[in-house]
Amino acid sequence: MDAHSGRRGRVVIAGAGFGGIWAARKLSGSGLDVLVVDKRNFHTFLPLLYQVAAAELEPGQIAYPVRGIFRRKRDTRFAMAEIRGIDRQRRRLITDGPEIPYDCLILSLGSETNFFGIPGAARNCFGLKSLEEGIGLRNHIMSLFEEASQTSDPSRQRELLTFVVAGGGPTGVEYAGALAELIRGPLAEDFPLLNLSQARVVLLEAGQAILAPFPQALREYALNKLGRKGVEVHLGAQVSRVAPEAVLMEDGSALATRTVVWTAGVRGPAVAANLGLDTGPGGRIFVGETLQSRSDPSIFVIGDMAHFEGPGGALPMLAPVAMQQGKLAAVNAKRLLAGKKLKAFRYFDKGVMATIGRAAAVTTFGKVSFTGYTAWAAWLFVHLLMLIGFRNRLAVLINWAWDYFFFERAVRLIVPCMADRRSSAGFERDAARPEGDGGGI
Amino acid sequence: MDAHSGRRGRVVIAGAGFGGIWAARKLSGSGLDVLVVDKRNFHTFLPLLYQVAAAELEPGQIAYPVRGIFRRKRDTRFAMAEIRGIDRQRRRLITDGPEIPYDCLILSLGSETNFFGIPGAARNCFGLKSLEEGIGLRNHIMSLFEEASQTSDPSRQRELLTFVVAGGGPTGVEYAGALAELIRGPLAEDFPLLNLSQARVVLLEAGQAILAPFPQALREYALNKLGRKGVEVHLGAQVSRVAPEAVLMEDGSALATRTVVWTAGVRGPAVAANLGLDTGPGGRIFVGETLQSRSDPSIFVIGDMAHFEGPGGALPMLAPVAMQQGKLAAVNAKRLLAGKKLKAFRYFDKGVMATIGRAAAVTTFGKVSFTGYTAWAAWLFVHLLMLIGFRNRLAVLINWAWDYFFFERAVRLIVPCMADRRSSAGFERDAARPEGDGGGI
Repeated sequence: MDAHSGRRGRVVIAGAGFGGIWAARKLSGSGLDVLVVDKRNFHTFLPLLYQVAAAELEPGQIAYPVRGIFRRKRDTRFAMAEIRGIDRQRRRLITDGPEIPYDCLILSLGSETNFFGIPGAARNCFGLKSLEEGIGLRNHIMSLFEEASQTSDPSRQRELLTFVVAGGGPTGVEYAGALAELIRGPLAEDFPLLNLSQARVVLLEAGQAILAPFPQALREYALNKLGRKGVEVHLGAQVSRVAPEAVLMEDGSALATRTVVWTAGVRGPAVAANLGLDTGPGGRIFVGETLQSRSDPSIFVIGDMAHFEGPGGALPMLAPVAMQQGKLAAVNAKRLLAGKKLKAFRYFDKGVMATIGRAAAVTTFGKVSFTGYTAWAAWLFVHLLMLIGFRNRLAVLINWAWDYFFFERAVRLIVPCMADRRSSAGFERDAARPEGDGGGI
Repeated sequence: MDAHSGRRGRVVIAGAGFGGIWAARKLSGSGLDVLVVDKRNFHTFLPLLYQVAAAELEPGQIAYPVRGIFRRKRDTRFAMAEIRGIDRQRRRLITDGPEIPYDCLILSLGSETNFFGIPGAARNCFGLKSLEEGIGLRNHIMSLFEEASQTSDPSRQRELLTFVVAGGGPTGVEYAGALAELIRGPLAEDFPLLNLSQARVVLLEAGQAILAPFPQALREYALNKLGRKGVEVHLGAQVSRVAPEAVLMEDGSALATRTVVWTAGVRGPAVAANLGLDTGPGGRIFVGETLQSRSDPSIFVIGDMAHFEGPGGALPMLAPVAMQQGKLAAVNAKRLLAGKKLKAFRYFDKGVMATIGRAAAVTTFGKVSFTGYTAWAAWLFVHLLMLIGFRNRLAVLINWAWDYFFFERAVRLIVPCMADRRSSAGFERDAARPEGDGGGI
């Protein structure tokens, strides 16, 4: 069970997000065996996902293979598997593949979009929580522009080119700003014959202010900037239903649209309910100040998936929280297996930042706030520093510089995805296709 | 019908491959309206597709948005649509969207994989003719390594890690070489616990030599280089059937494998049979020396889709042929609409080249042949020059330099594709998923 009994202790880390990666890095070289498990073979840099969905970055630029991250750490291994449950008695992780035994488990499975049970929302909205969703949204938006360019019916064009973002938090604000810039910039050049005064980006916020966690002055700055970029911000706008071609509001109004991007809420991952651990608000697992699950001291839960009950109360669902918790969970896992006393988690708040587009951002750092170019430069610097892997950093920098100097977007591709892995031509050939050359975008 | 009657003549170019893009570039500024139609919104640089499938390049690095290529050409427009047929009487292209009228049509729809009716081949093989197929193959190979790392059954591991490439032409040789380098290099480091002596790359060639169009000395060089990279080359190996987990040979032998990449043949696109134009060998459309279809003088056919009947006989299915024919078709379309005499096509053979991997390639240029580092440098230079768009060129150069100096691969991601465009989480939520957190890689 521990290093003293001849066998090295084994820490399994479920999830290769910020929490899991930072925990694994911290554990590496500590004399324990570390196994990282994720259903994807790559870490996704989620803070920049909205830029993939706005055709600003390549998908590969915000994704890094997990095996690449730990290549030089001989004590850290990886298994690609999806977590289905935990056999706590036998200390085994149940996956879609073989069972995985652990001495100590760190759960870091992140969060999912929360649609709050609004009818039609789950079915008709686009999420912005995974690389596949980011690529899907980019393809969708590009396809709508192509479709709009082939119709001359103004009301249909208006419906096709109305883009609704639900949720005025950082992700919603960042995506609405990026989308408005994409449309007024590169797409205006790509579609010279399309009347882009018909294109709208509408940001819906149920509360009375966007960017609620920021100081008043920064919220006003952001509201003003969004307006100047052409984003319509609707405050106090509560969505009552989402249909395939419209979003309906509580006040009875409706917007004809094919695109509702839902950034209005997150919750614990669905699997959290199947683990036999106490869950709290939003399906997140209760942890005390040592980050151990209330129900099982051999299980640590960190990041978005955890509901922290220590001093200071519930923590925001942000990457820095996950990273700091990842590091402490690593320390505590080691202490637990060595029979030592565990440490308590204290969140060091480094501030929050959000970008509204080209040379416009808001940043708070303790009591200090910035806006404009300085905030944007700080935002850019921090995100570049955080990006894992030198090559990604370089490629992202090139893309950003290009955007900045040439007002261009690199990646306006519509790459359809294949339902099956085999040759699509093959499938169609076998079905003796009656017409066309198949494939279809 | 022509520029003299008040209305400008309209040339429609179907297909945004090398032929179509080169034709449109040549026509731009000629006083005619040009419309490029493709089912994808991007041009795919097919000569480097095998590098996407070998996790060496990002998909976005070999794709360029068509609208971006013609952004500064006001007389050249683009429509994203799939060609279904031609109404020759009314001079209209039938698509999955609105009909498209033309005065003159240039068909450049490329080619498709030819499985020669071998049982199971179309269903069970991977093609290497489109960006989606390249991404799908990359995902598949990475997934097999992940699967192999989770089993301890040697015979299953051997089956999972046996990769068969059918076809010893340039594409097959290039892909087999790249795959062997991927496995012995980056994947060996990614999977330190996996016994990679079990991994095999097998190249099957039905004839008695690989790289048939190259001189004898170059074929021997390539064969030797492939062997040293660990590729098993089977000459005279005729595939009789492809099953989901094996490939069966005419001589009764079989290989247990999950991966058969089919590069053994190409044919005209399936839609060619629905156009009412005379087709020849491999479903390609007969054209005379002016590149006009035998059946309709207002239709030009170029590139892989055309069966050339001029002096010199049938031409190879290569990018330079398509580019040169694209340029002449543009000239002839303009002359046709102006009532002038058309010109005859003459192919200028610039030679052929194929790369076998790191610093190893074969190149012929007229009577001169190169191998090794010189050929590889020439190959690299020519392909970089051909790549459309400065940004792509830069990104590809960075990737190659990285590979060369660090023996690394950038993009070993498994990015699963979504069958539908909407939020996958949404769909699963609506279906009240019974277990797990869905998604699944």
